[in-house]
Amino acid sequence: MPSTLDVALPHPFDPLGTVEIEEAISIVTKAHGELFFNVVSLLEPRKAEMTAWLANPDTAPRPTRVAEVVAIAKGGKVYDGLVNLAEGTITKWELLNGLQPIITMEELIAVEHICRKDPKVIEQCELSGVPREEMHKVYCDPWTIGYDERFGSQVRLQQALMYYRPDVDTCQYQYPLDFCPIFDVEKQAVIHIDIPKVRRPLSKTKPIDYHPTAVEATGGYRQDIKPIHITQPDGVSFQITGREIEWQRWKFHIGFNYREGIVLNNITFNDKGTVRPIFYRLSLAEMVVPYGNPEHPHQRKHAFDLGEYGAGYMTNSLSLGCDCKGAIHYLDAEFPTRSGGTRTIKNAICIHEEDAGILFKHTDFRDDSVIVTRARKLIIQQIFTAANYEYAIQWIFHQDGTIQPDIKLTGILNTYALNPDEDTDGWGTQVYPGVNAHNHQHLFCLRIDANVDGPRNTVFAVDAVPSEHPVGSAENFYGNGFGAKRTKLDTTGNAATDYNGATSRTWDMVNPSKIHPYSGKPASYKLVSREVPGLLPKEGSLVWKRAGFARHAVYVTKYRDDQLWPAGRHVPQTSGEPSQGIPEWIGDGSESVEDEDIVLWHTFGVTHIPAPEDFPVMPAEPITLLLRPRNFFLSNPVLDVPPSYACTPSQVAAAGAGALDATDRMSRLAFETNGAAACCGSNGAANGHASNGTNWS
Amino acid sequence: MPSTLDVALPHPFDPLGTVEIEEAISIVTKAHGELFFNVVSLLEPRKAEMTAWLANPDTAPRPTRVAEVVAIAKGGKVYDGLVNLAEGTITKWELLNGLQPIITMEELIAVEHICRKDPKVIEQCELSGVPREEMHKVYCDPWTIGYDERFGSQVRLQQALMYYRPDVDTCQYQYPLDFCPIFDVEKQAVIHIDIPKVRRPLSKTKPIDYHPTAVEATGGYRQDIKPIHITQPDGVSFQITGREIEWQRWKFHIGFNYREGIVLNNITFNDKGTVRPIFYRLSLAEMVVPYGNPEHPHQRKHAFDLGEYGAGYMTNSLSLGCDCKGAIHYLDAEFPTRSGGTRTIKNAICIHEEDAGILFKHTDFRDDSVIVTRARKLIIQQIFTAANYEYAIQWIFHQDGTIQPDIKLTGILNTYALNPDEDTDGWGTQVYPGVNAHNHQHLFCLRIDANVDGPRNTVFAVDAVPSEHPVGSAENFYGNGFGAKRTKLDTTGNAATDYNGATSRTWDMVNPSKIHPYSGKPASYKLVSREVPGLLPKEGSLVWKRAGFARHAVYVTKYRDDQLWPAGRHVPQTSGEPSQGIPEWIGDGSESVEDEDIVLWHTFGVTHIPAPEDFPVMPAEPITLLLRPRNFFLSNPVLDVPPSYACTPSQVAAAGAGALDATDRMSRLAFETNGAAACCGSNGAANGHASNGTNWS
Repeated sequence: MPSTLDVALPHPFDPLGTVEIEEAISIVTKAHGELFFNVVSLLEPRKAEMTAWLANPDTAPRPTRVAEVVAIAKGGKVYDGLVNLAEGTITKWELLNGLQPIITMEELIAVEHICRKDPKVIEQCELSGVPREEMHKVYCDPWTIGYDERFGSQVRLQQALMYYRPDVDTCQYQYPLDFCPIFDVEKQAVIHIDIPKVRRPLSKTKPIDYHPTAVEATGGYRQDIKPIHITQPDGVSFQITGREIEWQRWKFHIGFNYREGIVLNNITFNDKGTVRPIFYRLSLAEMVVPYGNPEHPHQRKHAFDLGEYGAGYMTNSLSLGCDCKGAIHYLDAEFPTRSGGTRTIKNAICIHEEDAGILFKHTDFRDDSVIVTRARKLIIQQIFTAANYEYAIQWIFHQDGTIQPDIKLTGILNTYALNPDEDTDGWGTQVYPGVNAHNHQHLFCLRIDANVDGPRNTVFAVDAVPSEHPVGSAENFYGNGFGAKRTKLDTTGNAATDYNGATSRTWDMVNPSKIHPYSGKPASYKLVSREVPGLLPKEGSLVWKRAGFARHAVYVTKYRDDQLWPAGRHVPQTSGEPSQGIPEWIGDGSESVEDEDIVLWHTFGVTHIPAPEDFPVMPAEPITLLLRPRNFFLSNPVLDVPPSYACTPSQVAAAGAGALDATDRMSRLAFETNGAAACCGSNGAANGHASNGTNWS
Repeated sequence: MPSTLDVALPHPFDPLGTVEIEEAISIVTKAHGELFFNVVSLLEPRKAEMTAWLANPDTAPRPTRVAEVVAIAKGGKVYDGLVNLAEGTITKWELLNGLQPIITMEELIAVEHICRKDPKVIEQCELSGVPREEMHKVYCDPWTIGYDERFGSQVRLQQALMYYRPDVDTCQYQYPLDFCPIFDVEKQAVIHIDIPKVRRPLSKTKPIDYHPTAVEATGGYRQDIKPIHITQPDGVSFQITGREIEWQRWKFHIGFNYREGIVLNNITFNDKGTVRPIFYRLSLAEMVVPYGNPEHPHQRKHAFDLGEYGAGYMTNSLSLGCDCKGAIHYLDAEFPTRSGGTRTIKNAICIHEEDAGILFKHTDFRDDSVIVTRARKLIIQQIFTAANYEYAIQWIFHQDGTIQPDIKLTGILNTYALNPDEDTDGWGTQVYPGVNAHNHQHLFCLRIDANVDGPRNTVFAVDAVPSEHPVGSAENFYGNGFGAKRTKLDTTGNAATDYNGATSRTWDMVNPSKIHPYSGKPASYKLVSREVPGLLPKEGSLVWKRAGFARHAVYVTKYRDDQLWPAGRHVPQTSGEPSQGIPEWIGDGSESVEDEDIVLWHTFGVTHIPAPEDFPVMPAEPITLLLRPRNFFLSNPVLDVPPSYACTPSQVAAAGAGALDATDRMSRLAFETNGAAACCGSNGAANGHASNGTNWS
């Protein structure tokens, strides 16, 4: 088997391929018999080993391919294991106690079928107004139970959020049922049903749907959108070797795993010939979606979509011209099946460029000499479906050194039943008759393994503040003095910081050893993030305990291999006592994170008070943030991007002679009656007057 | 003359055309002799008259065309006037005292030429190291003086920020001179020079430039960007009648004036046949750019770019394929010249559509039935050059009822001289040797004349807050309860509110009489704005006094004709004692703004601590905010936008038969070796298995 692997040697950051997954499963099955496989995934190379190899790929030892395996044996025993694929050996096989691994799609899909046949569920459906002969119209979204103190974490459980579809094509989220079966994965049976005190029978409202038949029945599609074509006749501006991409000075490796989905490794920027490291690893590492209805059992609705379900496992297969337009490159994803087979998600990642508007422009008001340069961006995208919701995750790279993680929320609201004339008590909104969409937050945890000109970095909180001196004082006579207050986050405890909208707080990841020759400030990447609502569940609450990472907007930890998951390695059914992940790692907060190999964890997101406009499917809602180079480049790094048009003062004086005109010749006037639109400067330059097209009379 | 106007009757919101401007000037000149014209602009129709006409254009009286004229007579006398164009009469001619009107481009351009010949300026140049025979290499950016207590406001003054160009094509902002002449517009002479105690001779550093010759000399342009073509073979999806545009249910009038630039009037949305008013008028009404260096005379650098210079007067002539791509419609702008002529800025506004990514998407994890629909956006854009800076203002309309004002900052930093080894003291950054770019803010004031289902609206501040009940209490046992706290802003005093990042504060403009039948909440438009740094100059400071509008993120006033300018009607040389505009209008704060015709004023922006990456020209920095319908539409208003792909559960079961596939056929794979990318669902549907392209083995 190792010989097979040698044929096409994967990059050490490459996800396990189908052959490697099969090999790992085969090795484990031989040793331990039949198992359910929850995880068979690359154990990423240890950083010390990997950085040595990256520095000297020809001479340093190539990191070994190791598979991380999480499997469940009969009886619900959970094992954490490692398989050395080069040697074909199991190097770790550990029985876990009271921990539940990530849930698989197969575990989820099984629940609905069993619920439909369960007599107690059928009884509840009948009580709700669904006749027993319509059980095929009953659907459930199985979630992990989250944590329920009545059941603890020894038994693997799911909660089944129940719905009804009058027709197979009708969206079930408009017909929620009011009870919640608890499903035992090991027993493959419903072991309990949570029944509310106030019953809410099935809504009789007529359906509202987004599928074509429904739209056609209510007036049809609008006919007034003319096509926009986006084409790249000469191909794309990026190069891909395996999973390594190069584009506009950037170079990085695009990984993918079951949990985080896209992982970007070894992100560097070629700064005029010098390859400068910026981030060792970037990923969305966790998220939590707490719902704000305090009534039992809604407190259990606080999905950790990455740790409990996996952004990789739930990812969509993308398609040309739908999920993005232009010239697209796709990468597939390979995963184990629960029973020990493999599956491939075709087109799990799409990679494409987009025109990004104006990169820079300046006109001199004296003579209308002008330069205008258009920007391009590179987008690495995945979209995953977390039951009702969809998350479109874009990693956007800009030419100026900015990286922009961008998330669009769409899909369907999680809903619960509401009786006619029942009040939501402010915990939700009736978005459709009988449909209560509860308040919720989407809180994402971005893991930033900083490598700004090397691994030893320090983080500063930066606040824009007025001068401390009063108006009228010698130091601030007119009162206009202001500047940036920089607070060094020297220990893990001091680094736990919140957003401050009043001071436009940002966080700088700096290399204290690289001082900018002009500004005298250290080379840095600045985290600019403005959607930072903070965790609304209270201190001491179940969510607060389980989602320790979300208590502050920023944490900084010292890098350690395997500290990848901010809510802990195995998230389902954790009680939060003690909190796993970041709170566990920072302990008493005394560890130094100054001038160390550090990881910055940033929780951002949105608080969503639903409205009827979000139903029956939500128009995409954007969340974005920026990682920007500051005092990193000597000067503006995009001066050499070819301008669309440039005309200098001397060229204006020579009536435009020698002006650079690389204007896009594909653009057209919307209406021909409008007369020809002049290219920049050509109008005025031609008549020897103001070249911006101003005609003075 | 009225007969000429009758030929092509302008819409009452249309800006004055060239003929109308000429007519107004002619009438005024006949009555009052030779004048300098600072403003000849449409006096927008009184709202009562206009709304009556809008409601019944065939029967109600058509509002008369009235020109607002501001002119300066010999001796520096400033007049505010009104000219009734239908009757050819001057209805107002008022001599102002101690007020200075907006500055014109001609007033600005004159200063440099006179400074170059002024003996005292030449003397200072020589002291700085510029020989007198190089005075043609000396440039100045004339700014209004702002306010300088030594000179007051009776004399019309400019301050000249001085620079040097070693070569005519070299950007002067890298060679600032350290002194500041004061220019008297009436005398056309330098009347004073501010000379700093510490002198800073001309920098000898070699230039860094962005013009093609400079880039070619330092390695040339990058060659690795392949073209992206954006085309609309069937034309655009909008219709224009005069200056009224209709697009995707939206309809509004696009005005333009010398001061605000783009003005959008009578914004309505056709909601399934019912034309619903949303905003009577939207514009960027003012801005202030305070600089944070407290040393004299830098406190004078706090440009009110709209009130002092005019976003219309400074606007660029745009060009095809440079400032935007695709199929573009342009509108011109017509202005008076100072001497009483007219000028036309060709292509002052560009209007185009862009693909806007995914509008909504949902996949059912059970069977991979899926719908994916792409979004379109409409962009109304202008770009203006305020001396060193450029502002690209985009008014973006989305299909889902969202309006997104979006501003991109680019151009060049305002700079000042720095001696070698001199410290910036934290008030700026040395972005290039000898170049100190001072800290500054860009604070924009958005004027929102709300008309949410009619003129009588109320504003609420909305904060996302945890339940008031403690963890463990019956009301909030698990501690997860949270909701929206709504605070009614009932008076102008109570409505003066700040941003709160901790509660993700938004502001709802609601119509209390229009209750949503599902949610029970009033129809509203929500202001979602996250870049709200607050004014950093201290309370009582010069900027705080002059820019009263910027003291809070939101003000609400009762609508009054002519209350258009939040820093006052005539901004140059105001002392701020008392503060003009909003502070003057709200007075003691007791006026009711509940269920009234109201205007919401929102100040947002960015605090900019410069970095070398911003020099010599700044990569565009974005600022954006959203105006979103909440509880306004019955349901998602974009269900009828044709999907790219839709396959229902029954179609999945029938192996994809009947699926709607309108996928863009222009998109291509980036590399042919990659194999064909399946259209959504077709992969799996074809093999009767998981239709999202997941292959299970």
